[in-house]
Amino acid sequence: MSLLHLITGGSRSGKSAYAQSLAESIRSAGRTYVATCPVLDEEMRQRIERHRRDRQGRGWRTVEAPLELARAVADAPAGHVVLVDCLTLWVNNLLYQAQQGGGDLDEDELARLAGELAAACRGRSEPVILVTNEVGMSIVPENALARRYRDLVGRCNQVLAAAADEVTLVACGCPLNLKAQNAKPNP
Amino acid sequence: MSLLHLITGGSRSGKSAYAQSLAESIRSAGRTYVATCPVLDEEMRQRIERHRRDRQGRGWRTVEAPLELARAVADAPAGHVVLVDCLTLWVNNLLYQAQQGGGDLDEDELARLAGELAAACRGRSEPVILVTNEVGMSIVPENALARRYRDLVGRCNQVLAAAADEVTLVACGCPLNLKAQNAKPNP
Amino acid sequence: MSLLHLITGGSRSGKSAYAQSLAESIRSAGRTYVATCPVLDEEMRQRIERHRRDRQGRGWRTVEAPLELARAVADAPAGHVVLVDCLTLWVNNLLYQAQQGGGDLDEDELARLAGELAAACRGRSEPVILVTNEVGMSIVPENALARRYRDLVGRCNQVLAAAADEVTLVACGCPLNLKAQNAKPNP
Repeated sequence: MSLLHLITGGSRSGKSAYAQSLAESIRSAGRTYVATCPVLDEEMRQRIERHRRDRQGRGWRTVEAPLELARAVADAPAGHVVLVDCLTLWVNNLLYQAQQGGGDLDEDELARLAGELAAACRGRSEPVILVTNEVGMSIVPENALARRYRDLVGRCNQVLAAAADEVTLVACGCPLNLKAQNAKPNP
Repeated sequence: MSLLHLITGGSRSGKSAYAQSLAESIRSAGRTYVATCPVLDEEMRQRIERHRRDRQGRGWRTVEAPLELARAVADAPAGHVVLVDCLTLWVNNLLYQAQQGGGDLDEDELARLAGELAAACRGRSEPVILVTNEVGMSIVPENALARRYRDLVGRCNQVLAAAADEVTLVACGCPLNLKAQNAKPNP
Repeated sequence: MSLLHLITGGSRSGKSAYAQSLAESIRSAGRTYVATCPVLDEEMRQRIERHRRDRQGRGWRTVEAPLELARAVADAPAGHVVLVDCLTLWVNNLLYQAQQGGGDLDEDELARLAGELAAACRGRSEPVILVTNEVGMSIVPENALARRYRDLVGRCNQVLAAAADEVTLVACGCPLNLKAQNAKPNP
């Protein structure tokens, strides 16, 4: 069974760079980077380009999967390490899509989709690394949609962390192990 | 002397579920859940109901104590493990009450009330578990009341953590020990 | 070479008190406190005064350096332990200065200034302790300037953490080691 590693942290904590260096330290037939970020504005476009340049020339294949994340993971070439960056934008895209359709993204439905993603990750022969964000360590947002979003992200993170073999929190570029392989279960 | 355990984490970090599983792993004559959440709107009512259902049938007695928290802890049945969820709403309620009365909640007064709560916890024969939130890992809120609130919560958390035997940070459902029983003191 | 120690944490996490107790536990010819906080309003003035009172009578020399931080560190008396509190306000001041001049604070320029600060710290014979904030563990701020600011702070923290011998995260007044002297390098 493959190793599933969830890497979390705040904005600009160094979590993506850490995830990439981790993926590049693994011997594999190749590396697939699954980007969940839709290009919405100039600020995002610049950030995406900077990240793409960072990976340039280091042997990464990049696919875009703003919504069909489980499929993108399952379809990556055999033998590839897969890095998904990041789950928070995926949740954002799912919520936006649901609301554009006049509906809403139910938390249990999100948990089901997160479970599908976990299954796709565990079905691979090589490690899968998922990057997410800590978004809930502030006062409650005044905006109801922002509250909804952070609830959904929190639930998503819990589902994937429960399925993961390892969970790492990155702060100031420093990794901190939250869950380790072969660790004893919690009470 | 009883064991006082403070559990902190972001919104939807899994801290409440962790606190409950911890309480349920302790052999005791019974379990009292002290809820600090006042029912203010539909969003909160639904969340409270969901949590109540989660505890249903697992032997929990529930009391509501939005303000008189030290008394609720002291008055819990002898031999019960007590779980308080959460301190952040308690601080919110105290601040709201003070402002409704035309006054303010002084930080030193809050520290005194937090000290009373710590004393009530330590006066019990069985473990007391307190749940709180990390609310300060964001940029400074524009709203002055929000800044005041997060200062008060931070002070409250420090007072209870200093009194606690154990402090645990939960992120993505994973517990991380910040302060352990029998640990060496800091410099 | 001196010991460089970065201490991070949320607002009111107890990081400043921890940094001060750490500095006071070090035998040295004296202690210099470098304050980056400009006095902008009454709320800040009160907070500064409270912190100054906290240090009063414990042998601290205080200098104000809202912008020229590397110089203030280099110019501290020989043999002094130096404590800088905090990097987040320094970044805020640099950004404000750039914008007042009709320009902007480029992230690479900030990284260069952070590198100068690291060099000044490492040029000293006694330990230097830097205090910063975790500002990115919330949902993305709606305000573009706030997003820019938290990106800059995140970059600054990463540069100083990479240069530091030790990095500590403080939550609820409890220190958690993120990077230790003599630790093995990350993958």
